[in-house]
Amino acid sequence: MATIKGRQIVLAARPRGTPRPTDFRLEDVTLREPSEGEVLLATEYLSLDPYMRGRMDDRKSYSPPTPINGVMEGEVIARVEQSRDPRYRAGDRVAARLGWCTHAVSDGSGLTLLDERFTPITTALGVLGMPGLTAYGGLLTIGKPKPGETVVVAAASGPVGSLVGQIAKIKGARAIGIAGGAAKCAYLKDELRFDAAIDHRLPGFAEDLAAACPNGIDVYFELVGGAVWQAVLPLLNEHARVPICGLVAQYNGLESGDRPDRLPAMIGEILSRSLMLRGFIFREFWDQRPAFLHEVGAWISKGQVQFREDIVQGFANAPNAFIGLLEGRNFGKLIVDVERPDRERRGA
Amino acid sequence: MATIKGRQIVLAARPRGTPRPTDFRLEDVTLREPSEGEVLLATEYLSLDPYMRGRMDDRKSYSPPTPINGVMEGEVIARVEQSRDPRYRAGDRVAARLGWCTHAVSDGSGLTLLDERFTPITTALGVLGMPGLTAYGGLLTIGKPKPGETVVVAAASGPVGSLVGQIAKIKGARAIGIAGGAAKCAYLKDELRFDAAIDHRLPGFAEDLAAACPNGIDVYFELVGGAVWQAVLPLLNEHARVPICGLVAQYNGLESGDRPDRLPAMIGEILSRSLMLRGFIFREFWDQRPAFLHEVGAWISKGQVQFREDIVQGFANAPNAFIGLLEGRNFGKLIVDVERPDRERRGA
Repeated sequence: MATIKGRQIVLAARPRGTPRPTDFRLEDVTLREPSEGEVLLATEYLSLDPYMRGRMDDRKSYSPPTPINGVMEGEVIARVEQSRDPRYRAGDRVAARLGWCTHAVSDGSGLTLLDERFTPITTALGVLGMPGLTAYGGLLTIGKPKPGETVVVAAASGPVGSLVGQIAKIKGARAIGIAGGAAKCAYLKDELRFDAAIDHRLPGFAEDLAAACPNGIDVYFELVGGAVWQAVLPLLNEHARVPICGLVAQYNGLESGDRPDRLPAMIGEILSRSLMLRGFIFREFWDQRPAFLHEVGAWISKGQVQFREDIVQGFANAPNAFIGLLEGRNFGKLIVDVERPDRERRGA
Repeated sequence: MATIKGRQIVLAARPRGTPRPTDFRLEDVTLREPSEGEVLLATEYLSLDPYMRGRMDDRKSYSPPTPINGVMEGEVIARVEQSRDPRYRAGDRVAARLGWCTHAVSDGSGLTLLDERFTPITTALGVLGMPGLTAYGGLLTIGKPKPGETVVVAAASGPVGSLVGQIAKIKGARAIGIAGGAAKCAYLKDELRFDAAIDHRLPGFAEDLAAACPNGIDVYFELVGGAVWQAVLPLLNEHARVPICGLVAQYNGLESGDRPDRLPAMIGEILSRSLMLRGFIFREFWDQRPAFLHEVGAWISKGQVQFREDIVQGFANAPNAFIGLLEGRNFGKLIVDVERPDRERRGA
C-alpha cells in the first residue's frame, strides 16, 4: 500500500499565559491511502483564530481541550487529491476541521464543498466562513441594531469585528470600532467607513470612546473583554444588547486577581439598566448559513462589505503567527498558506 | 379651607449597609382639600419591596434616588375619600405610587382603579400587582421555560419567587426553590408543590442545590445575587436563561471586596455555555398586564396558584418591617395595614 508524507503541528505543552513556540511541535507523519468511501485531502490554507487558545487549556468549555501531543484544532481549506467517495472528485475544494496538518484522510463527514464562485477561496475561512457567520448571526439575531443606534465592536479590524461594523452601517446604525494602533484605526475610518475608530492603546482610550458615543451604546459586540469591557460598561444604554463571542484579552489568563471583585457591581448594572449579555458560538446560527452566504456575498459584490486578509507563508510559521494573533500583531483575517515554502527554518 | 391631618415617613439619612430605624423619620403633615380635578386619597395598605433599598442610596439606577427628607417611595392601595375628578367616586379603591404616607391629594395621574372582584384587595400589591407581573413577564418572556426543563428561583417564598415556581410548574418545568429556613422550605414543597426546596442557610447549600438539579439548570430567576448566584453558576446548562430583577443580597452593600475579581471568570462562563443574562424591571411588561391579570387570576381561582401575605399592623411599623424584609424575616408578601393602630409606640 502506497504511503503519503505529511506534516502536522501538535500541542507539546499547555501554555501558561501567552503561548511560546515550544508549546507547539512540528512532526512529520505518514498517511495511508484512502480506502473505499474515503478521500485524501491536501491542506491549502489553515485558518488561525483566537478561540484556539482556549482549546490549549485543560479547562471545560464549549468544546473539549486538545490533548497533549494532539494535533492543534482548526479549520482549513483543502483540495481533494484522491477520492474514493462518489460525492467528491479530485480537485474539489472543501472546508474541513482537519486541524493543523498538511494532509488527511477523511471519510467525508464534516466536509463542506466550497462554491468556487466566491473568490478568493480564502474568504471561506473569513468573511464568508466561521468569522463571518459569527458576525452576521451574533449582530442580527442577538444584537438587533436599529437605525440610528450606536454599535461598538472591539477587535474591529479583524474578520468578525470588521463585518459587524459594516453590517451595522448597512442596517442604518452608527458603527464605532475599537482597534490597536493608528494603522488599523485609519483603515476602519477611511476604508470601511466606520463612524469612528478608537485606539485602545492610547492613554485616553475610555474618554475617547465616550466622546465617540454621545448617545451611549446600544449594542456592544464583545470579542475581547478586559479593559475594553470596563470602558464600555458605563456607556451602555438601557436595554443595550451585548453579544459575547470572544474574550481574547482574557485567553492568556493575564488578568490580575488583585483588584476588588467587580462581579456584584456588574450584575447590579445588568439589573439597573436592563442589559442583556448573551454568549454564543457561531454553530448556533448554522441554519442561517445559506442566507448569510447569499446576503454577505451580495454586499461584497456591491462593494458594501470589504474584507482584509493577512496571509502568512509556510506551514511551519503557524505557531508564531498564532502567538502574534493573540497579541494583535496581525492585520486582517490571519491565514496560513500551507503549500508555500516556509520562510523560516523548520525545527529538527 | 379645611385641612386634613396625615402622617408620612421620610428618608432621614442614607444608610450604610443595613438600614437602621434612625434612617427613617415619621412626620405629621397637614394636607389641603382637593381642588377641582383632584382626589383625596387615604392609604389602606402600603407595599414593602426590596427595590426600595436601592432608592435610599445616592446612586444612579433605573430610577432616581429618594432625596434626604423626601418621602420614602412605594406603592399603596388607597381609598378615594373625596373626589373632584369625574373618573373617581368616594369609596373607589386605587393602586398608586403615593409613597409611605397615610393621605395624599392627587390629580389622578398614575392611579389604577382596582377591580374589586379580585380578593383580597391586597393581591393588587402582590400576586396580581408589581411582584406578580415581574414573575409572569420575566419568566415567560425572558426565561421561556420548556416542559421538562429545570427552573430555579431564589427568595422562593416571596411574592415574585413563589409565582415564578408555580408558573414554571404549570408550564411543565421542574421548579426548585431556594429559601431561608425550614418553615419556608416546607411551605414551598408541601403547599406550593415545588419539586424541591433548598435552604440557603444550611452549610451544604451548594451541594444540596446540585443534588436537586441532576440535569442542570435551564432558567435561573435571579432575585438575590451573592452566594446563591455562586452556587447556581456552575449548574447552568448551555443556553440557560437568567432573568435578573433583584439582588437583595447586594442591596445593603455588605459583599466583601477582598476576594479575587470574579468578573473575567463569569464572562468566560457566559461565553463557554452560551448563557443569557438579562436585567429587567416589571414596567417593561406593562402592556402584558391585562393578559397577566386574566391568566393568573384564573390560576388562582382554579387553585393552581397560591399566595401568602405577611401583613404588619400600623403605619409606624413600616421601617422595622422593611429592615426585616431585607434580612429575610418576613414570610410572604410584606404589606403594612396602615389604618390599624400601631402596636408600637410612635416616635416623638
